[in-house]
Amino acid sequence: MSVALGLDVGGTKILAVAVNGDGNVINEFRVKSSNSRRRLLDSLEGATATLVESLGPRSEELVGIGVGVPGLLDGYGVLNEVPNLPAVSGTPMTAELSRRLGHVFERRERFRLVVDNDGMCSAAGEIAFGAARGLSDAIVVTLGTGIGGGIIAGGQLLRGGRGFAGEIGHIVVDNDGPPCGCGRRGCWEQYVSGSGHTRLAREAALSGKATRIVELAGGNADGIKSEHIFEAARAGDLEAWGIVDTIARYLALGIANLVEVLDPLAVILGGGIIRDGDLFMPLTKKYFEQTRRGSGERSVLLRSAELGDRSGAIGAAALALGLVT
Amino acid sequence: MSVALGLDVGGTKILAVAVNGDGNVINEFRVKSSNSRRRLLDSLEGATATLVESLGPRSEELVGIGVGVPGLLDGYGVLNEVPNLPAVSGTPMTAELSRRLGHVFERRERFRLVVDNDGMCSAAGEIAFGAARGLSDAIVVTLGTGIGGGIIAGGQLLRGGRGFAGEIGHIVVDNDGPPCGCGRRGCWEQYVSGSGHTRLAREAALSGKATRIVELAGGNADGIKSEHIFEAARAGDLEAWGIVDTIARYLALGIANLVEVLDPLAVILGGGIIRDGDLFMPLTKKYFEQTRRGSGERSVLLRSAELGDRSGAIGAAALALGLVT
Repeated sequence: MSVALGLDVGGTKILAVAVNGDGNVINEFRVKSSNSRRRLLDSLEGATATLVESLGPRSEELVGIGVGVPGLLDGYGVLNEVPNLPAVSGTPMTAELSRRLGHVFERRERFRLVVDNDGMCSAAGEIAFGAARGLSDAIVVTLGTGIGGGIIAGGQLLRGGRGFAGEIGHIVVDNDGPPCGCGRRGCWEQYVSGSGHTRLAREAALSGKATRIVELAGGNADGIKSEHIFEAARAGDLEAWGIVDTIARYLALGIANLVEVLDPLAVILGGGIIRDGDLFMPLTKKYFEQTRRGSGERSVLLRSAELGDRSGAIGAAALALGLVT
Repeated sequence: MSVALGLDVGGTKILAVAVNGDGNVINEFRVKSSNSRRRLLDSLEGATATLVESLGPRSEELVGIGVGVPGLLDGYGVLNEVPNLPAVSGTPMTAELSRRLGHVFERRERFRLVVDNDGMCSAAGEIAFGAARGLSDAIVVTLGTGIGGGIIAGGQLLRGGRGFAGEIGHIVVDNDGPPCGCGRRGCWEQYVSGSGHTRLAREAALSGKATRIVELAGGNADGIKSEHIFEAARAGDLEAWGIVDTIARYLALGIANLVEVLDPLAVILGGGIIRDGDLFMPLTKKYFEQTRRGSGERSVLLRSAELGDRSGAIGAAALALGLVT
C-alpha cells in the first residue's frame, strides 16, 4: 500500500508522520520548529530522513511528501504572511524543499512534493480520513491562536484565484467591534480564536470581573489563555460562563455566514481549543440553529474534527498521496 | 453556430432571449410574469414557442433552453423560497418545463433543459460573455430588491452541497444591526440592497432628515426607492450623500468578507442599482481598498457587470449552451 510523509510546521514544533493509504499513522514524532529559515529547512530535511529510515523496506512504497506551513504560499511556492515565524517569511519553500529532499525521490517514477497552507492541510486530512470523509462540500475551521480554514466544494479543496481562499479569520462579524491587527474592526478572530478568548477575558478583568480566571492565570490578566476560561467555567464560575456564551454566539454567527455563502453539508471544528468542545459546542449548536432560516432540508452538521492536532500532518500526507486535490 | 434560449423569470416580467455561441442576442422580448403557477408556466411555454418561431431555419441550431428563476431549486428541481412570487413556491419547475417544452427537443440528439436560480444565471452570463469572462475565480453580486450571488471557483459555478451556495444577502455584517426578515440582525441586505437603501433613507426621514429624498418620493417616506436617494445625491443633497456613503461602506465591507473567504480575482456588481454605479462605485472602491490587508499582489478588481438586466436571461442561455457548468 502507498505511503506518504506529512510534515506540519507549527510556531513551536514540527509534527512529522508517515501515513498509509488507509490513513493509518505508521510512525510519528515531533521536532522543534524554528524562526530561522536555515534551521527550519534543516529540521524538515532531518525529519524527512528519519521518517524514510524508519520505514525500512516500506520506503519503497513512498509516493510523496507533504509539508504544511503556517502562512500563505504564492504561485511560485514562496511562503508569505507567517505571523508565528516572521523570519521565515519570503522563503521559497517549494524550491528549497525540492532541492533538499530531491534525493528521496531521485529514482522514483511518480512522486509528489506538496507544500500547502496548514489550514488547507487540516481540511485535506479531515476530508480524506476524518470528520468530512465522503462529503462533497464542507468547511473545516481550525481554532488556534488565530483561525485557519479549509473549504471543500464539489469534492475539491477551494483554492481561490491566487491560492488564498479560506482565510476566514478576518471576516467582519461586528462592524462596531474591537480593532483587529489587520486594520479592520470586529473580525471573527477577535471573538473565537485563542487570542480572541484572551481579549474577551482581559476585557472582563479590566472591569473588575473574571477574578477566578485571573487567579487561574497566576494572578495576571495578561497571562490568560483559553484553558483558564474553560477551567473556570468547568468549576462553575458564572463570569467564565458568560465569556463561553459570547464565544459560542460569535462562533455560531461566523459559521452561519460561511454556510450562507458556501452551503456545506457539514462544518468541522478543529484546533487545540476543540479539546474543550464539550463545554462550548452544545451552546454553539444551539445558537447556530437559531440563525438557520430555511427548512430542515438545509440542516448543516456541526462536528468536531477527528484527527486532533495531527490533522495538518495527516492532511499534508493525504495531499501527497493524491487523495485530495 | 449553436443557439440557445434564455428565459429570466422576474417578479413582474419574464425576459426571453435567443443567444448564439458568441453571446450575441439574436432576438429578445418581455412578457408579464405571474404569481400563479399555471399562468407562469403558460407564459414560459408561450415565450419559448415565439422565440423558436422567430429563429426560422436557425431553429435547427437550437441546442438548449435555460430558465432562471427567482428562488431556490432543490435536488428534484422543485422551486422554493420565492419571495417575489410566493404562490409559485413548490412548483416542480424542471418536471413541468420538461413536459411542456418537450416538443421543442423531440427529435434532437443533444438538448439541454436547464433550470437554475437567477443569481447563478446572472453569474453564468457574466462569466461566459460579460465582466468575468476568462476569470477562473470571481463573485457576481446582483443588487436588486434583495441580493443575488453567484460564485465562480476554479472555472466552475460553486453550487454547494444542496445547490444553495451564493446566498450572500444574509451574511451578518453588524451583529448589533437592524433586525432582518430572516430572523438575524445586521444582514448585508439591510444596507446595500434596494430594500436596504429604502430602510436607511426612511430611518433618516424618521429623525427629520432626508427631506429632499422624501420630496422626490412624492412626500411619502414609505415610497422611497434607491433612485430617489441617488437623484437627491446627484442634485448635491448632503443628507443623500450621507446615505450613499453608508451604502458604499457596507458594500465594501461585505465584499471584503467574501474576498477573504473566496479569494476571487474580481468582484462583479450588477443589478438595477448599478445604473447609478457612477455615484457609489468610486466610494465603494475607496472603502474596499482600505479593508485590504495584504500586498498589492492580492488586489481584487471591482467591476460593474456588463450585461445589465439581461445577464440572467443571457446566462440561462449560456448554461443551456454548456459554456458554464
